[in-house]
Amino acid sequence: MDFVIIGGDAAGMSAASRAKRHQPNLRVTVLEMTRDVSYSACGMPYNIADPQRDMDDLVVREAAVFEKKQGIRVRLRHEARRIDPESRRVEGVDADGRPFSSPYDRLLIATGASPILPKIPGIKLPGVLVLKNLEDGRRLKHYLSGRKIGRVVIIGMGYIALEMCEALAARGIAVDMIKPRPGLLPWMDSELSARVRAELEAHGVGIHDGRAVENITAAPGGGFKVGAADMTISCDMVIVAAGISPNSRIAADAGLETGPMGAVSVDATLRTSNPYIYSAGDCADAFHVVTGKRVWIPLALRANRAGWAAADNICGIETRLSGIAGTAVFKVFDLEVACTGLTQNEATTAGFLPETVTIKTRSRAHAHPGSASIHVHLVGDRETGRLLGAQMVGREGCAHRINAAAVALHAHMTVADFSQSDLAYAPPFGPVWDPLLTAANQLLKKL
Amino acid sequence: MDFVIIGGDAAGMSAASRAKRHQPNLRVTVLEMTRDVSYSACGMPYNIADPQRDMDDLVVREAAVFEKKQGIRVRLRHEARRIDPESRRVEGVDADGRPFSSPYDRLLIATGASPILPKIPGIKLPGVLVLKNLEDGRRLKHYLSGRKIGRVVIIGMGYIALEMCEALAARGIAVDMIKPRPGLLPWMDSELSARVRAELEAHGVGIHDGRAVENITAAPGGGFKVGAADMTISCDMVIVAAGISPNSRIAADAGLETGPMGAVSVDATLRTSNPYIYSAGDCADAFHVVTGKRVWIPLALRANRAGWAAADNICGIETRLSGIAGTAVFKVFDLEVACTGLTQNEATTAGFLPETVTIKTRSRAHAHPGSASIHVHLVGDRETGRLLGAQMVGREGCAHRINAAAVALHAHMTVADFSQSDLAYAPPFGPVWDPLLTAANQLLKKL
Repeated sequence: MDFVIIGGDAAGMSAASRAKRHQPNLRVTVLEMTRDVSYSACGMPYNIADPQRDMDDLVVREAAVFEKKQGIRVRLRHEARRIDPESRRVEGVDADGRPFSSPYDRLLIATGASPILPKIPGIKLPGVLVLKNLEDGRRLKHYLSGRKIGRVVIIGMGYIALEMCEALAARGIAVDMIKPRPGLLPWMDSELSARVRAELEAHGVGIHDGRAVENITAAPGGGFKVGAADMTISCDMVIVAAGISPNSRIAADAGLETGPMGAVSVDATLRTSNPYIYSAGDCADAFHVVTGKRVWIPLALRANRAGWAAADNICGIETRLSGIAGTAVFKVFDLEVACTGLTQNEATTAGFLPETVTIKTRSRAHAHPGSASIHVHLVGDRETGRLLGAQMVGREGCAHRINAAAVALHAHMTVADFSQSDLAYAPPFGPVWDPLLTAANQLLKKL
Repeated sequence: MDFVIIGGDAAGMSAASRAKRHQPNLRVTVLEMTRDVSYSACGMPYNIADPQRDMDDLVVREAAVFEKKQGIRVRLRHEARRIDPESRRVEGVDADGRPFSSPYDRLLIATGASPILPKIPGIKLPGVLVLKNLEDGRRLKHYLSGRKIGRVVIIGMGYIALEMCEALAARGIAVDMIKPRPGLLPWMDSELSARVRAELEAHGVGIHDGRAVENITAAPGGGFKVGAADMTISCDMVIVAAGISPNSRIAADAGLETGPMGAVSVDATLRTSNPYIYSAGDCADAFHVVTGKRVWIPLALRANRAGWAAADNICGIETRLSGIAGTAVFKVFDLEVACTGLTQNEATTAGFLPETVTIKTRSRAHAHPGSASIHVHLVGDRETGRLLGAQMVGREGCAHRINAAAVALHAHMTVADFSQSDLAYAPPFGPVWDPLLTAANQLLKKL
C-alpha cells in the first residue's frame, strides 16, 4: 500500500514515522516543497536571538535519517500542485522543474500554513522578510548577520511578532511593531494585555497599533521607510508577521470540504470528506473541546498529535481525537503569557452567557522572597456554570499553571468543581490558594 | 448564636473570618493554645534559612486585627481540654491557669496536628527541637542564632526534614538525616527518589535511612551525640521531624467518630458525627477523590478550604467539598518534587490493578538552552483505564505541571483522555509533548 504525505514538517513526519512503525512494509513517501523536514519552527526566534547558534540546531532529524533508519522515502523540493482523487494521484514538479506523479492508496495533506502578506507596495522588497519555515529563518538570520541592523519594523503583533521583539532586543536591535487594528492582543482581557504592553514598552519596543502600513520603500542610503497615514518609520529590515493562513488550496481544488478560515475539514479520525484522504497540522481544522464546533487554531502539539492519529487510522488502528482547547503560551521578555479555551467574545458567539473575572495575586506565598504578581482572567458560563476559558500573565508561574485549566476544559468542569481542585502548594511556588483557584472562587460569586 | 473555634491557625481563622463575613452578628470565639494565630507555617524553613528575616514576617494577620477589624474574639493561650457535647460547652484553662468554659451553638475543632516524638532517651533535651507552630520556629531560629552550630541531625526524612536541609545548608550548616525505615521517600518511584537522594548528597547531606536512633545524649563540651546501633553522629542541635499526628484526642474523648490515623471523621460538609460540631484542618480527615475513601493527608490548602466550607455550612450556606487528591510539592535544593493521587501501592490497596510508567524527558524544547531533565511517574488502572496518580521530579517545570494531573484526578479521567489534553507549548517552557503527555502516551501502551 502507498501512503503519500504532502508536507514534511510536524504533522507529516510524525505520521510518516508512526505509520512505518505500525506497518514496516508500508510504502511511505513524503513530498516536501522545501529542503527541510522535521525541525522546531517554534524555536526560530530563540535561535535568531543568539548569533552564535546555527539555525540547523533546530533540525530534529534529517531527511537522510528518515530514509536510512526508517525506510521513509523523503522527496525534498517536490512541490505537490494537484490531487486527482479519481485516479488517486498527486501531481507536481520537482526541484529541477520536472513533473512527477505519485499514486496513493492513502493520502495525508500536511501542507501547513503560510504567512499572510498584506497587499502593501514594497512588501516583496528584499529585506522585507517573513518567518515561517526554516528557510525563512536562515534567510532572516543571514540578513541580520550580514549587515548593521539598528532598527527593525515588525508588521503584526501576534505571538511570533512578540517573540521576535525579544530575539531582536537580545541582539541590541531596536524594534517597532505596527498593525492596522487597534489593541495589542485584542482577544485578551484588557488588564492583562496592558501588562504585556507595559513589558514591551519597558524594553523600548515601539507599539503602533491602529496604524495601517501604506507602503514600504527602499531608502536611498540603504534600509527602508515604512509609511503609515500619520507616521513614517525608518529601519534596516522589515519582518512581516501579520498572521498565517492554511495551505488548503490544493485540497479545495480537489473538491475536499473546507471549514473555518478555509482550513481542510477533518473528522475526529483526521479524515477529510474523501475517504482516502486525511489531513493534519496547520492546514487542517479541529473540534473545540468547549464548543464542539470546528475551529482553526494551528499549534505544534495538535500537529504532532494529529499526524500520529492520522497514521493510526490509516494503519487500521482507530484513533479519535477529542479536540483542542487552544492552549497556548508565549514569552514576552520577562513575562509568561498563557491562555486556554474561549475568550468572553468567543463564548458569546458560541451561545454561552459568559461572566468573567480578572484578579491580581502573587506568584509565591505570603512573605516568600522573589514573589511577582500574576494576573488571572477566567471566563465562565452563567447558564451551566461551566468553565470556558482562562488567561494568565506573570513573570513566573503561568506557563505550566494554564494546563490545569486546560484539563478542566477537556473535562467540561464547572467553575465550582474546578474551584475545588486540590492543587499543589509550597511557599516557593505559589500562594496557598493557587492563583487559578483564587480566580475561580471570585468568578463563582458572580455566576 | 455562639460559634466557638478551637485552634486559630489556617482552618480556624479561615472559618472565623468567613463566618463573620456571612453573619456579622454571629459571636465568633477562637480558643488558641499558643500566642499566635494566622501565620504561614509552611514558610518557616525558608524564613529560618535567612538569619536577617524576622520569624514574625510569617504572621499574616495578628489576633488584635481579627478582634478590631472583624469583631472576632480571639483568646490566645487558651487551652481547650474538654468538650461537653451534652451541655455544649468547651472547657479549658487560660494562660494564667484559670479554668474557662465557653458555651457554643456550633463548634469547630481545628486543633491541627502535633509532631510525633519517638520514644528515644534524650528526645526532650534542650536543643532537641521540633518545627510545627510558630513558637517552635522562633525557638529553633533563636537556638541557631545564639550559638555556633556546625552540624544538625534531623530525625526523619519527610518534606519538612528535606526543606530544613536546604534551610540549614543556606546558613552553612552541615546536615545529617536519620530514620529507622529504609528508603528515602519510600512512597515514591525508585528512579525519582534516587534523583532526590543524589541532589541531597550533592549538597553534602548525610542520609542514614534504615537506622533507628537509640539515644540522644548531651556531649560534655556542648552539643549532642545521636546514637544508632552502628553509628554515632556528633552535632550541635537535633531537629525531630518524624511525622505528625492529628490533635484529635479532645474530639475522641467527646465521643466523636475518628478515622484514618485517628483523625476526626467529617462528612463532605465538614460535620463530625455530632450535628453541632464540625472539624477542619490537620486534625480532620477527608475523602480521597480517586478512591472515595477516607484519608488523612494534612495539607495547607485543604485546611483553608475546609475552614471556609465549615463556616459556610454553619451559616446555613450548604457547601460540600468534593475531596482531595493529596497534591503536594516541595523543594529539595534545586529540585522540584511533586505528587498527586495514589502511589502504586496505595492503588493496589484500594482495589485497583495498577500499571505504572516512569519516563525521563526534558524541561524545554529540543535545542532550547537551559533545559534540564524531568522525571515523570504515572499510575493508571488496568481495569478502567483511569489515571490514578502522578509524581514528578526536576530542576524546573514540576511544581505547577502536577496540577494538570490533579485536575484530571478530580475529573476521574482515563489515561487515554488525559493523554489527549491540549497542554501549552513554547520552547522556553517545555517540549512539544508536555512531559505529562509523554508519560501518559507511554502508560497507555501498557494498559
